[in-house]
Amino acid sequence: MKAEKEKDTLVLHAVTNENAKKIAVAEIIDLSFGKETHEIKERKNLRVIELDAEPGKTYTFNKYFAVFTDNDPVTVSVTDSAINCVKRAKDRGYEACLKEHNAQWATKWETCDVKIDGDDEAQIALRYSIFQLLIVAPVRGTGNSIPARALSGQVYKGAIFWDTEMFMFPFFLYTYPEKAVELMRYRIKTLDGARRKAQTEGAGFRGAFYAWESQETGDDACTYFNIGDPHTGRNLRTHFRDKQVHISGDVAIAMWEYFKITGDDLLLLEGGAEVILECARFYYSYAYFKKDKNRYEILDVIGPDEYHERVNNNAFTNMVVKATFEIAMAVIGYLKHNHPAELDALIMKIDIAEELPCFAEAAELLYIPQPDKETGVIEQFDAYFKLKEATIEELKAQKIHPDEYMGAGQGLAVPTKIIKQADVVTMLNVFRDRYSTEIKKANWEYYEPRTEHGSSLSACGYAMVAAEFGNLDFAYRYFMKTASIDVEAKYKVYVGTIFMGGSHPAANGGAWMTAVFGFGGVKADENKVTIQPRLYKKWNALQFTLFYKGDRFAIKITQKAVEIIANAANKRRHTFIVAGKSIDCSPGSTYTIN
Amino acid sequence: MKAEKEKDTLVLHAVTNENAKKIAVAEIIDLSFGKETHEIKERKNLRVIELDAEPGKTYTFNKYFAVFTDNDPVTVSVTDSAINCVKRAKDRGYEACLKEHNAQWATKWETCDVKIDGDDEAQIALRYSIFQLLIVAPVRGTGNSIPARALSGQVYKGAIFWDTEMFMFPFFLYTYPEKAVELMRYRIKTLDGARRKAQTEGAGFRGAFYAWESQETGDDACTYFNIGDPHTGRNLRTHFRDKQVHISGDVAIAMWEYFKITGDDLLLLEGGAEVILECARFYYSYAYFKKDKNRYEILDVIGPDEYHERVNNNAFTNMVVKATFEIAMAVIGYLKHNHPAELDALIMKIDIAEELPCFAEAAELLYIPQPDKETGVIEQFDAYFKLKEATIEELKAQKIHPDEYMGAGQGLAVPTKIIKQADVVTMLNVFRDRYSTEIKKANWEYYEPRTEHGSSLSACGYAMVAAEFGNLDFAYRYFMKTASIDVEAKYKVYVGTIFMGGSHPAANGGAWMTAVFGFGGVKADENKVTIQPRLYKKWNALQFTLFYKGDRFAIKITQKAVEIIANAANKRRHTFIVAGKSIDCSPGSTYTIN
Repeated sequence: MKAEKEKDTLVLHAVTNENAKKIAVAEIIDLSFGKETHEIKERKNLRVIELDAEPGKTYTFNKYFAVFTDNDPVTVSVTDSAINCVKRAKDRGYEACLKEHNAQWATKWETCDVKIDGDDEAQIALRYSIFQLLIVAPVRGTGNSIPARALSGQVYKGAIFWDTEMFMFPFFLYTYPEKAVELMRYRIKTLDGARRKAQTEGAGFRGAFYAWESQETGDDACTYFNIGDPHTGRNLRTHFRDKQVHISGDVAIAMWEYFKITGDDLLLLEGGAEVILECARFYYSYAYFKKDKNRYEILDVIGPDEYHERVNNNAFTNMVVKATFEIAMAVIGYLKHNHPAELDALIMKIDIAEELPCFAEAAELLYIPQPDKETGVIEQFDAYFKLKEATIEELKAQKIHPDEYMGAGQGLAVPTKIIKQADVVTMLNVFRDRYSTEIKKANWEYYEPRTEHGSSLSACGYAMVAAEFGNLDFAYRYFMKTASIDVEAKYKVYVGTIFMGGSHPAANGGAWMTAVFGFGGVKADENKVTIQPRLYKKWNALQFTLFYKGDRFAIKITQKAVEIIANAANKRRHTFIVAGKSIDCSPGSTYTIN
Repeated sequence: MKAEKEKDTLVLHAVTNENAKKIAVAEIIDLSFGKETHEIKERKNLRVIELDAEPGKTYTFNKYFAVFTDNDPVTVSVTDSAINCVKRAKDRGYEACLKEHNAQWATKWETCDVKIDGDDEAQIALRYSIFQLLIVAPVRGTGNSIPARALSGQVYKGAIFWDTEMFMFPFFLYTYPEKAVELMRYRIKTLDGARRKAQTEGAGFRGAFYAWESQETGDDACTYFNIGDPHTGRNLRTHFRDKQVHISGDVAIAMWEYFKITGDDLLLLEGGAEVILECARFYYSYAYFKKDKNRYEILDVIGPDEYHERVNNNAFTNMVVKATFEIAMAVIGYLKHNHPAELDALIMKIDIAEELPCFAEAAELLYIPQPDKETGVIEQFDAYFKLKEATIEELKAQKIHPDEYMGAGQGLAVPTKIIKQADVVTMLNVFRDRYSTEIKKANWEYYEPRTEHGSSLSACGYAMVAAEFGNLDFAYRYFMKTASIDVEAKYKVYVGTIFMGGSHPAANGGAWMTAVFGFGGVKADENKVTIQPRLYKKWNALQFTLFYKGDRFAIKITQKAVEIIANAANKRRHTFIVAGKSIDCSPGSTYTIN
C-alpha cells in the first residue's frame, strides 16, 4: 500500500494479494477555514487541520472520496480515475451530488420497493432487506456477483455461494434485471474455474462443477476441512466442496430462468448456453446408471441439509439435475430454431455433439424420489426414513461443547432425522409447478418439526410453502424471521469453531420472495404471470413492481382485489392469470380483478 | 444356571441368553481316600473332601469333566450326554483316556504339522500357531466356525469375520479338509441371515450380504457405531458393517476353492452353489454401471484398509467382486454338465434364471484398477493417489489421546496415504495368479512404507508377496511377527476405547500360509499343484503335508531339492509342477526334484 498527495487530493493505492488487482482510494475536501498540513504516517494518509474554533460557531466542510479497482471499467489508471472522480464531485459540490444520489435511490426504490399497508414492522423489515440487496448489487464493471455475507466482513472469504442464484437472484430478476444479468455473467466469466474443478475433484469429471465458495476466478475457496472441532481443535473433513453438486444446476436453472422471464436471449449467446451445456455434461459424468432398475442415480452428494453428507439420491439434488438436463435440451431446441449458426459453433467449440442424446436419456430416466403413496412424504435421500427419530432439544442436550457442529460425519444429527435446513421443502418450493399443494403440505408437516433451521436459507422456503397451503400464520412468522434476521441479529454465529456472523443477503432475498411469491402468490414462466394472492390478515395491501419480458407492471394486492397497471412504455401485451382468470395486459392499461 | 448332583456326578446346566441353547457340564472323580460331602453354594457345585494327610505320602485322584451344548449332535439331553460321557471316561480310567487323547493329537499332528529344520525359534512359533488353530477348529456338530479371537474371550463378540475364510480356511483346506468343510457349512447355515442383511442395509439389496461380525444366525453383531472416541466418550459411526462388502465374495471364493482343491462337489450341492449365486446376486444389486465409460463400478465401500471408509473402486473389493461373478458362471457351468437336475431345481428355488446373463456381463465389464503404466502401482481406490503423503510417525505424533482411532471419517490417517493394513497387497496375494512378480514387487515397495500394520491380518500378506519377489529377509521377519503374535503379545489392544486383545487365529493361519505358500511356494488350482520353493537361508528343510483332491502328499523342501511322497492310499495320479518341471505323482511313489 502506498499513500500519496496529488495536489489537493489524498490518495491511497494498493495491489491485492491473490490476484494483483489495483485499488485506489482518493479523497478531497472543501475546507474554508483553519490551516491544513499533510502527514503520511505508516499506512495512513492524513490531513492535519488546525484552527482556533470560536464558541457557538459552526464549521462545515465536505469530504469527497472515491474507490476504484481493476474490476471497474476504467479507461485511465485506477488512481487517476479515483482522483478525477473526487475532483469532479468537488467541482459540482455537495448539494448537486446529494441530489444525484437521491435521484438514483429514487429510481431504485421506484421499481424495487414492496409496500405493505397495515404492518409497519413488516414494512420496515422488508425494506431493510431490499435496501441490503440494493447496496450490494454490483455497480460498475461486468460479471461481478454478491458474496454470501455481502460486504459485511471477511466471513465465508467473500465468496459466492448458491445463495446468490437461489435466494438473491429472483429479486433482481423481477425488479432490476440489469443487475440479475451481471450475476449470471459472473458465472459465465468463471466457467473455466468450474471446468477446472470438475477435472480435479474425486476421480475427475467432465463439464462444469461450480465452486461451492466461488472466487473471482471461479476456483473454490471452500476447503476440505471447513469446520473446526471444538473437542480436538482440529478441522473436520466436510464434503461441502466436493459433494454439494447441486450448485452447478442452481446456476443452470437461474441462467434459464433469466431467459424465460426477461425473454432476452443475449445472455445465452454470450456464454449462458455454454454454461448450461457444461453443467449438464458434468451431471452426466457424475451420474451412474442402475441397470437392474433401468434408471440413472445421483450418488454420494450433500443436499441443502448439510448435516447428512454423502447421501444417495437426494430429492432436491436429483430434481436439480433432471431440470438441468431438461434445460440443456430446451436451450438446444431454442438455439436450433433461432440461432442455428451460433448453436453449431458452440457445439463444435465444446465438442459436445455426441453427448446430447445422453442428456435427453438421462432427463427421462433419472430417478426422482416419489411421494409415498399413503403419506405423500418424499424421502429426502435413500434410507433417510431409517434414521433415528430425535428432537432438536434432545440433540442440543447431548452437546458437550455449545459450538460443536452437528454434521460432518460424526455430529449429533448425523444418525438422526434432524435436518439443518429446508431440503425436500426447498425442492417443492423451487419446483413449485411440479407438485400439488397436498404433497407440499404433507412434506412440510413431516419435515418442519425435524428442521433445525440452522441456516438462514431455511425459513423462507418453509414460509413460502406454508403460504401456498394456507398456513399464513406460520408463513408470516417465518417471513418476519427471514426479513428481520439482520435487524434482530439473533442468528447463530458459530459453526464449530468458525465465526459466520455478518449480513445475510440470501435471507434478504428470501424475504422479498416470501412477500411476492408467498403472500403475493406470483409465479411466472415463459408464457404467463400467475397471481394467486394469499395476503396476510394484518395486511391491507401489498404493492410491488414486476419486470416481465422487458415490460413493467405495478401490482397492488388487497384483501379484495388485484390491480395490475401495465406501464405505458410497455412494448406488448402479456398474459396474467389472476385467481384463475386470464387477462391480456395491454401497455398503459389498468386491470382490477376482484 | 442350575447345579445338581446326580449320584456321583456333579452337573451344572444353563441356557444361553440370546438363542436359548442348553449347556451342561458334568464332572466325576475317582477318589480312593478321605471323606467326601457335597455342597451347592450360590452358582457353585462343590465336592468337599476331608482327609488326614500323612506327610510324605502322595494322594492321587482323577477328575473327568465334559461340556455339551445344543450345538453338539446329541441324541439324549445335553445333561445326560455330559453325564454319560464322564461316566464312560471314568469307567475306562485315566490312562486309557490319556492314550486316546494322545492318539488323536498324533493323528492331527501327522497331517497338520510343519517341520522347520534348523530354526527352533521359527519351529516353536509356527507349531504354536498350528496348535492354536487345531484347538479352536469345530469338533462336534456341523456348521460351526471359528471367531476372530477364537475362544480366548468375549472380544469381537465371539463373531465370525472374513478372518476365517481368508486367513484360517487355507490351513484347514490343505491339511484337515473335514474341518474346512464345516467352516463352509457355517456360511450355508447362515445364508438366510446374509439375505436379511442385504435386504435391510442402505436402500436394500438383493442376494446375500454376509455379516461383518457374523452370529450363529448369520445376523450381524457389528454395530454402526463400532469404535469409541476417547475425545468425547461417544461411539464413532463406522461403516464396517454396511460398506465392507468384500465379505460376501470372500465366502464365495473360499466355497469355490474348497471345490477346486478337494474336488468334492457335495458342498456345492448341499448349499454352496446357492451361497455363491446369492453372493453374485448381491454384488450385481450393489454395482452401478457407468455408461460413458462402459463399465461397472463398485462404489462406496471399505476395503481391507479400514482407515479409508466409503471409497470407490477399491482394487481388492472390485477384484473379489469380479471373481465372484466368474465363480458364479463357473459353478453354473459345472452343475449344468454334472448335475443338471440339481441346477434346474436351484435356479427355480431362488428364481435367478434371468439374472445369470447379468453376472457374465458384469464379470467382463467390471472395472479393475490397473497398474500404472510407468510405475506398475495399482491405485488402492479412486483418487487414493491424491491423498496427502505422511509417515506413520508423523500421524502418531499428532495424536491427542494414545488410543484415538485413525479412521472413521475424521481420524488422522483419513486424509493421508497411510493405510491400516495390506489392501492392494492382499489382492496381489489372494489373486497371485493374475499378476506378475514385477507388479507385486512394485506395489509392495509402494505400499509397505505406507502401511501401519495396525491389524494382525496385515503382516502375512506382505510376507508372502515379499517371498515371491525374493525379499526373504523381510518375509522371514514378518513371518516371525505373524507366527509369534500370541507368544510375544506385543500387538495393540485398543481400537479407540474398545479392547481387542485375545488370541489371533487369523495370524496363526497367516503363519501357516507364509510357511507353505510363501517359503514353500505352494500354489494349487483345479488341475495341478505348483511348488516354487524359496526357502529361507537359515532353514535346512521345510516339511509339511498337503491334501489335494482327497489324496495326501508329504512334501519336503530342502535348499537343494523337493521331495514329494504320494501316499500309498491315494486314489489316483496328480500333476505337480516343481521349479517348472511337471511330475505325475502316482500313489505310493516318491519323487525327488533337484
